[in-house]
Amino acid sequence: MNFYAGRIKDLQGLLKDEKLDALVVARPLETAFLTGFSTDGCVMLVSRTGVWAFMSKMLLEQFNSKAPFVKAASCDNTLEAVISKVKEQKFKKTAFEPETETYLRGRFWAKQGCLEKKGLTASLRLVKEGEEITALRRSCRVAAEAFRRIQPRVKTGRTELSVARELEDLMQAKGAKGPSFNLIIGFGAHSALPHHESSERKLKNNEAVLIDFGCVYNGYCSDMTRTFFHGRPTPEFLKVHAIVAASQKAGVKAVKAGVKARFVDKVCRDHIADSGYGQYFIHGTGHGVGLEIHEAPTLNAKSEETLKTGMTVTVEPGIYLSGRFGVRIEDSVLVKKNGCEILTR
Amino acid sequence: MNFYAGRIKDLQGLLKDEKLDALVVARPLETAFLTGFSTDGCVMLVSRTGVWAFMSKMLLEQFNSKAPFVKAASCDNTLEAVISKVKEQKFKKTAFEPETETYLRGRFWAKQGCLEKKGLTASLRLVKEGEEITALRRSCRVAAEAFRRIQPRVKTGRTELSVARELEDLMQAKGAKGPSFNLIIGFGAHSALPHHESSERKLKNNEAVLIDFGCVYNGYCSDMTRTFFHGRPTPEFLKVHAIVAASQKAGVKAVKAGVKARFVDKVCRDHIADSGYGQYFIHGTGHGVGLEIHEAPTLNAKSEETLKTGMTVTVEPGIYLSGRFGVRIEDSVLVKKNGCEILTR
Repeated sequence: MNFYAGRIKDLQGLLKDEKLDALVVARPLETAFLTGFSTDGCVMLVSRTGVWAFMSKMLLEQFNSKAPFVKAASCDNTLEAVISKVKEQKFKKTAFEPETETYLRGRFWAKQGCLEKKGLTASLRLVKEGEEITALRRSCRVAAEAFRRIQPRVKTGRTELSVARELEDLMQAKGAKGPSFNLIIGFGAHSALPHHESSERKLKNNEAVLIDFGCVYNGYCSDMTRTFFHGRPTPEFLKVHAIVAASQKAGVKAVKAGVKARFVDKVCRDHIADSGYGQYFIHGTGHGVGLEIHEAPTLNAKSEETLKTGMTVTVEPGIYLSGRFGVRIEDSVLVKKNGCEILTR
Repeated sequence: MNFYAGRIKDLQGLLKDEKLDALVVARPLETAFLTGFSTDGCVMLVSRTGVWAFMSKMLLEQFNSKAPFVKAASCDNTLEAVISKVKEQKFKKTAFEPETETYLRGRFWAKQGCLEKKGLTASLRLVKEGEEITALRRSCRVAAEAFRRIQPRVKTGRTELSVARELEDLMQAKGAKGPSFNLIIGFGAHSALPHHESSERKLKNNEAVLIDFGCVYNGYCSDMTRTFFHGRPTPEFLKVHAIVAASQKAGVKAVKAGVKARFVDKVCRDHIADSGYGQYFIHGTGHGVGLEIHEAPTLNAKSEETLKTGMTVTVEPGIYLSGRFGVRIEDSVLVKKNGCEILTR
């Protein structure tokens, strides 16, 4: 069976479990997840035994070549076309996902009698399998290889943006489609801003360098961060780097199937707090990574989720000393039964 | 006045016109439009005289350095923080935008008594001014220059993806942040697919080449398409190319302030229909371009919008002969009082 056809079958199984007749899917991320075809303006209807897609004329030929297992049709109004099909098929319980729909479209579905059902496609996306794991492994390896190439080339006088561009080139040369987010290259005090925007600032001698980056490979995102010192590291940088490295290592060690996501956060956070830097670790420990650079589950103190075999998550504690420097170390890891596989190396 | 502070002032003027006390803004595209700071997880409240932003602790320092004209605060729950502020300020009529909010968040606002109000920030984005026009001009010029460089380098044996990557590099070398969408490079029959995904297919002698591309420069997108023949063009290619070129030229000539968007579509469509290829022009004529690669207004047969000075739109008719070749020619243009300025050249 085609990989995507198999995925639709999984969704159809969930519909049965949830006693739903059908689900409407309209956001490009989810329609691409179900068909392999990425576009705006395609609306799908998945029932327990059927699957339809409605789109403009110009998309039809390409959609059919990508997803021949879906009954595709062109139409002027995709939302009305879905509702006509729902009526024709006499579906009583058709759902939509309130977290992916816009309010405007969701209200249309609701007015047509559709029900809200959260998390159906998200639950399929949570655990990775087969081709997805292959793509994630490759995506992470491409990123890690690019870092090994770029690190010796980060020299005095280079700008943050020039490093970002060369990293992108290195990853694309290895088959990546592009970066998985706006790469964060922070020199000196910029390394203390967790969401820094790479700039034309030039690297000086004896400064911290933080590189948070990743690529998209066969649709799947990688995410990793390395922090190092350009020049002669100060004792404080060495101390902070060692604390974050130990915290991150302990966090990675804590990852395995059955563990609460918040436990991994606690392990990382406790280590940093015990070292006296608790107030400078100002974000959660990690997040899922897959089709999106940030997806479920969330690894922070409030997380209710439990890690399962096949989830891919980041572990990325950090310490940020405002106006001076910051250190973050991040790997993407694949959750396994008795531990995890570090993908970004 | 800071450029973004001026933009917020424009929004505050709209609130007054619409007799609203305040607007909540949560989608990253809109919060960035109002502050210059792009991130997930920042929720803003703009009233007629005040402006607040709520976010996680890790974003606060960076937000304050970018947008000192906003009262920013960190909090655990951004949605609740907004509602507390609404109550504290005794705002009676607070609105949200149903087309940008998710159903889940929109329903939260609605339950808290907020009203739906479509198109407020969109109307500010529709007409470009000052720095925006500068960025759009530069974005388009960078793309056009890159095309002049790449065209002679598109040779037998090169893959579509290698052309896409080199184009991206050429644009980034001139200051672009990255491509404005997944660049469409279509060789041979691939040129007949309007939304083709660039592939590892190699260029053969005597084939059509369609290149649909653009970049992001200072946040603003460019969009242009060129189609040419590699080798000795067939008489049919020359004929179809001439028809599309004349259609596109007529469309560009029709653009000026006060004209209905659908009139530009009609001009392009009539020319192609009169030449006998009407059924092969399977999409609308154009769209607005700005912070997003596709935004308002829409230029198709059903469009109700009227072009105004300062809008930037694409004019991109095409003829697609399935399994053989397609031709599309596209420019991004700036609407002026008595005509338009072609930006992509």
